[in-house]
This record gives sequence, C-alpha cells and structure tokens, in this order.
Amino acid sequence: MSYLEDLGKRAKAAETTLAALTAERKNAVLNHAANLIEREENQTFIIAENLKDIELARLAKKPDAFIERLTLNKKRLTDIAAGLRQVASLPDPVGKILSAFTKENGLVITKKTVPLGTVGVIFESRPNVSADAAALCFKSGNACVLRGGSDAINSNIALVNLFRQALNMNGLPEDAVQLVTDTSRETASNLMKLTKYIDVLIPRGGRGLIDSVVRQATVPVIQTGAGVCHMFVDESADLDMALRLADNAKRQRPSVCNAIETLLVHEKIAESFLPRLADLFYDTEPKTAIIGDEKTADIIKVERAAKPEDYYTEYGDYIISLRVVSGLEQAVRHISEHGTKHSECIVTENKDNAAKFKQDIDAAAVYVNASTRFTDGFEFGMGAEIGISNQKLHARGPLGLPELTTYKYIIDGDGQVRK
Amino acid sequence: MSYLEDLGKRAKAAETTLAALTAERKNAVLNHAANLIEREENQTFIIAENLKDIELARLAKKPDAFIERLTLNKKRLTDIAAGLRQVASLPDPVGKILSAFTKENGLVITKKTVPLGTVGVIFESRPNVSADAAALCFKSGNACVLRGGSDAINSNIALVNLFRQALNMNGLPEDAVQLVTDTSRETASNLMKLTKYIDVLIPRGGRGLIDSVVRQATVPVIQTGAGVCHMFVDESADLDMALRLADNAKRQRPSVCNAIETLLVHEKIAESFLPRLADLFYDTEPKTAIIGDEKTADIIKVERAAKPEDYYTEYGDYIISLRVVSGLEQAVRHISEHGTKHSECIVTENKDNAAKFKQDIDAAAVYVNASTRFTDGFEFGMGAEIGISNQKLHARGPLGLPELTTYKYIIDGDGQVRK
Repeated sequence: MSYLEDLGKRAKAAETTLAALTAERKNAVLNHAANLIEREENQTFIIAENLKDIELARLAKKPDAFIERLTLNKKRLTDIAAGLRQVASLPDPVGKILSAFTKENGLVITKKTVPLGTVGVIFESRPNVSADAAALCFKSGNACVLRGGSDAINSNIALVNLFRQALNMNGLPEDAVQLVTDTSRETASNLMKLTKYIDVLIPRGGRGLIDSVVRQATVPVIQTGAGVCHMFVDESADLDMALRLADNAKRQRPSVCNAIETLLVHEKIAESFLPRLADLFYDTEPKTAIIGDEKTADIIKVERAAKPEDYYTEYGDYIISLRVVSGLEQAVRHISEHGTKHSECIVTENKDNAAKFKQDIDAAAVYVNASTRFTDGFEFGMGAEIGISNQKLHARGPLGLPELTTYKYIIDGDGQVRK
Repeated sequence: MSYLEDLGKRAKAAETTLAALTAERKNAVLNHAANLIEREENQTFIIAENLKDIELARLAKKPDAFIERLTLNKKRLTDIAAGLRQVASLPDPVGKILSAFTKENGLVITKKTVPLGTVGVIFESRPNVSADAAALCFKSGNACVLRGGSDAINSNIALVNLFRQALNMNGLPEDAVQLVTDTSRETASNLMKLTKYIDVLIPRGGRGLIDSVVRQATVPVIQTGAGVCHMFVDESADLDMALRLADNAKRQRPSVCNAIETLLVHEKIAESFLPRLADLFYDTEPKTAIIGDEKTADIIKVERAAKPEDYYTEYGDYIISLRVVSGLEQAVRHISEHGTKHSECIVTENKDNAAKFKQDIDAAAVYVNASTRFTDGFEFGMGAEIGISNQKLHARGPLGLPELTTYKYIIDGDGQVRK
C-alpha cells in the first residue's frame, strides 16, 4: 500500500467515530488544542520550527510578502488559538433534520445532515490554514487529509501535531487529522485521484493551484478563490458613495479574492467621476495604478492602455482596470464575459437597474451599493470559513461548517415493499 | 469555434432569459411540448425515426433487452407526454428565499435559489431520457446540452426538435435545449471539458460511462447510478418480513440501481432463514441464482462459491450474493468495504441495532425494515428525478428539481464599506 493510501485509509477508519461525536466532545478537543497552542513551551517550539521554514525561504530568495505570510509569531499563534475557540463556539452542523415526513404506506423518511467523510485540503504557504482547516473539518465531523506547501512543512507539522495531541488526550483517534508530509508534486497528484478514501477536495490558493486540481482530480472538488470582481458605477450613482466603495473594494486589501479588479463606469457620468477617482487613486496612499480603455484615457491620465487580457486578470495588487460602458447592459455583458462568478457590485440610485443587475448577474454574491469586500464567512454570519466557492455545485460563496456536510435519507419501515 | 463550443455558447446565451421566467411560462412550454408529442402526425414521425434506430440496432445484433429499451411506441410516447405534464405540475424551484437577514451595519443579505446555468446530460440508449432531462432542466431554469447514445440519435433528434418547437412557439430561445448530434467519442470527451459553457455534468448510464466521465471531466460532475446495495438480516429479524423484503429488493426489478446485490445473514438465524430463501429464489418465478460463501454453502445449495469480486459486482440481474456474518459489526464493515453508498437496509426487531445501523452506514438512503427499491424521486415525494446521486457533493440520493438549482447571495446596502 502506498504512503498516501495508508494515510487515506487511516483517515477513513476514523470517520465513523467522528460522525457520532457530540458537540461537547468536539468542542472539548478544539478548546484543548487552542490551549496547547498557547502554552509557552509549545509556542517556543512552533516558532523555532517556523524559523526553519523562514530560513529556507530566505535561502530560496522568496519575496518579502511571501515570508510575511509564512511567519508565525506569538500574536499569530494567539490568533490561531482564538480561531479554534471560535469554531468551538459555533453550532454543530451535524445531525440536523432537514425534512421528515410519513408516506401513505407508513414509511417515515427523514433527511438528516451528516459529515462529508474525509475532506482533502490542498493549500499553499500560510501555515495557519492547517489549524483552521483541521478545526473546521473536525467540528463538522469530517476526517481530513491536509497537504500544505513544502515551504511551510515544518510549521505545519508542529501545528498539526498539537491538534493530534489534543485528539489523543481526549480519547479520540489522531488519524482524524492527517498531514501529508511528502510534499512532492507526484504525491499531490495522487491525492487528487484518491477517490477510495477522499470524498471531497478543497484547493485553497492561487489560480495555478486551482486549475491544476480541476484538471487532475477525479475526487469531487469544491473550487475556491479566483476572483475577478467588478464594480459598475451607473448613471444615477451617488458619486461620493461610488468613490468610497471603489476605494474600499480596491484598496482596503487588494490581495484578497473579494477585492475588485475592474471598475466599469457609465459614459454619462464618466467625465464627472473619473477625475475624482484619479485624484484619489493617484494622490492618496496606497497609490494605485489605473489602466484604462480609450474612453477612459480621453478623460484621465492612465498608466497604460488596457489590453484585452487585463480584463481577465486578478491583479491582487494596487492596480485597477477601468472601462467606460454605454450602460447597464454592456456592464452586465462585460461581467458575464470576464467575471469569475465571485462578487459583483452595482452602484446606482435607480431601483429598476438594481433589480435587473441582481437578477441578471450570475455570481456567488451580487451587491447593490456596498463594497464587495463583505463576501466572507464572518461577514455573512457563518462564524468561520474554509474558503469561498466560486463554482455552483454543492455550495457557493463562503464555505462555513454547514457547507462541510452532506445528508442522508433514513427510512424507517415495518415491512414495506415496492409495488 | 468548434461545433461543441458553438453549441455551448448558444445554450449559455439562453441562460439569462431562462433564469427570469415565471413558473407559468415554463409550464406553458412543458404542456405545449406534451401536446406536440401526443399529436397524431408527430407520433407517426417519431415512431418512424425510432424505427431507423431499431433497424440499425438489429443490424448491429444488439440484444433484445437493448432493443426493448430503445423502442418508442404510442404507449411510451403517451408516458413521455405525461412525464412532461407531471414536471409542469411541480413547484418552481427557482427564486426561493433560503435565508435573509439584516446585519448591524444595515446590509440586507438574502440567499436565493437560482438555476445552475447550463447542465450537460450524457446518457445511453433510452430515448425518453432526452425529453425527461430537457423538461427537468427547463423547469429548473437551466439551459441544457444533451448527449445521448448514437444508437438512439434519430429518436432523440425527433423528440428534442418537438421540445424546441414548443419553446419557439412560446417566444423562447430554442437554444435552451441543445442536442449533440455528433455522437463521436471525441465530442463526448470535449463536452466533459467544456468548463466555459457547461456548469454541471450529469452522466446517466452504466458504470463504464460514469467512470469514464469522472476520469475525463473538468466540468463539475454529479455521479449517478452505480448501486451495489445490501440487505442485512439481523439475528432478531422477523423472518417472514425478511423474506418478503429480500424478494422485493432483489427480484421486483433487478436491473435498476436500488435493487440489492448482496444479502448478509446473521449466523444465528442462517440455518432457519437460508433454506426458506433458497426455496423462494430457486422454486418460484423469476428464478434467481444464489452465489454464496462457505458458510452459506454449508446450509443451502449454491450456484457457485462467491469470489471476492462478486461482492463488488452490480449484477443487475436475477443473481444474488450471500454471505453469513457474525453480526451487525461485520455487516457494517462488509457494506463499508463493498457498497457504493447508494441504498442499504437492515431487517431487525432490535431497536439498538437499527439505530446503530442508521448511524454508522454511510449511504444516500439507509433503510430499516423496508425494501431498498423505494430510493426514487417519485417515492421520496420529489415528483420526478433526473437520476440518483451516489456522491456526497451537492446532492445525495434522488435528484429532483431543487437539486438542479444553486443559490446566490444578494446584498443590498447604502454605501457600506468593510473596516
């Protein structure tokens, strides 16, 4: 049996135990793991292990932003522990009766939530993801197989071992949480095809990772992440509001998937709006580059002319593409063609246009007069999230605990046969 | 642009119109299509086209059962029309508010059902599937791209054209329902990778088809079909009931996925139960072959000894595998190892064992004292089904209209930004 099959088999063997756990027992493990992460000697150990990863990253001349994401310190460990306690405080998503009815023949059919089984999570260099993902999978009654980037392997081992210790000390199988320590590409590919043991695969990371998983996986996948989000400033928009929203949606945190990449501006207000936007983005911190189409360039200075591929690009940076459009219909067409069905916004005072935008835009989250930055498990009241789905199957938008469950039908009879 | 891309693009272009349709307009189309299918001259035409398929199948020396499934006659066309009217009578699954709340900052977040978009359906030789699938996709607001087996191509073209005629006569885009008339394998493979235009792929057919789709598809898939279902006769079972249930679950219609393939019998009642089962299966019609393990063969005559692979086989025929087990735990282990997470049954008078079976068995439908044959959209009150899912992502068990939708979050604000 291969390394990975053994790992998958161990995770699967823990499933029945996990599915039957009460919320109390699960919460005890989560709180215990949080306490372990906050204990002085463990913090010292994790930080030392993390330092190994950081040194290797420095040797490999990784950019500062990369090392920043990789770094664990006392503050971040406290945040991770708080995250585990937060998950403990959320309602248990398992065992909820979704519907129940008695048929004429006396059969009682009950539809009840159950864990997915074993969840595979493939993620990149942030080590906090290992603890977050383990906590969310565990609270939803799932075993998990975590495969983090090789850059964070020492940090991930240290964090996952503490979680497993908490499981063990609470009389539960450590194998409920597995870390793939062989971080070769081949092993990652094999994980994507481990249909016998993995029920669902959740990739978390950049577009390259997601595309690679979608191409290779035979395990069902929940695609997360890629966000080419838009804001359309309609003719009737309150321009002060539009400026505030564009500022927030682009510049508050441009690296995340719910930040906007493209601003579409109605031609009738372009001359009044664009100069104000240019003043804001060019003259105030954080300075932001504007790329634009010809009509934009007729009104304001642009960094360079927008190429067709710009409108498909997730910059994740202080860069914005602009396009002047003839109205709502062209805006909707542009978004349908270029968007990733993540988060889309219209700024308008026209109720009919708002209604049409909400109806016609096909995305996980459609906004009227609010920043796209709200697409988030916490903001949507889920308390935590394992990612943001931008596929349509299973779950859309932020993935909280209920999205990590499925259901089964339980049928109680007294000898009924089909006629 | 390739043939398939053109087809996908046309389907996608119809999506916005479909998503906004009222139930009344959709039902008018469905009833209209039903009327067209029942019209004398259309029936004559469809039956003539179907005859072409049948003649080709006869030339290709296809088995009688195959030709039986392929055949359309007046009775079957009337059934197809009735099926369309049945779908018209079901509630519209689109536009349902799943949840709605106002946040402290004033944002109103509404979670609302929407169509999936464009659904690809790949099916084998039953031509009625083309009409059924078109109706279910259309009623749930989805465009669809249907790819039936080459054996039924003339029949499928005739049926789909009538559906498109109904769309046209009701002022709606015909492209909402597309049939892939190029039935080459290459085109089928390309359809599985048409992520730009197809949102979800539903394969309907035998295990070979499903496996091929899972292996090749990059479009998200809902796996249907494969059913290696079990019945476990516990020590405390009412043996009269167990006999009735085994008879129904195996012999009422063995070709379907919710029929059982394996009967597990508690060792303590094997000597009293097995001879009665053998009498029933060997001596009454439809005669059924029994394959068994050593312990079974010690008690009754078996057709042959069960090989390990027998327990993984979906016979779809009048054949049953038997195994004598030491009790509930071994039965659960056997099912976990060999089952396809479809429909599993325990026959028992012991409430604790029933509860444990319901908790521990991981399947779409778990039965106590009832035939597995009830796993079906009509029996579960859905009114119709496009297949039975035995994966855990998105939907499990029978797939009715609600399972052909997803949702979007609509967020109404008045200028809120993220802090």
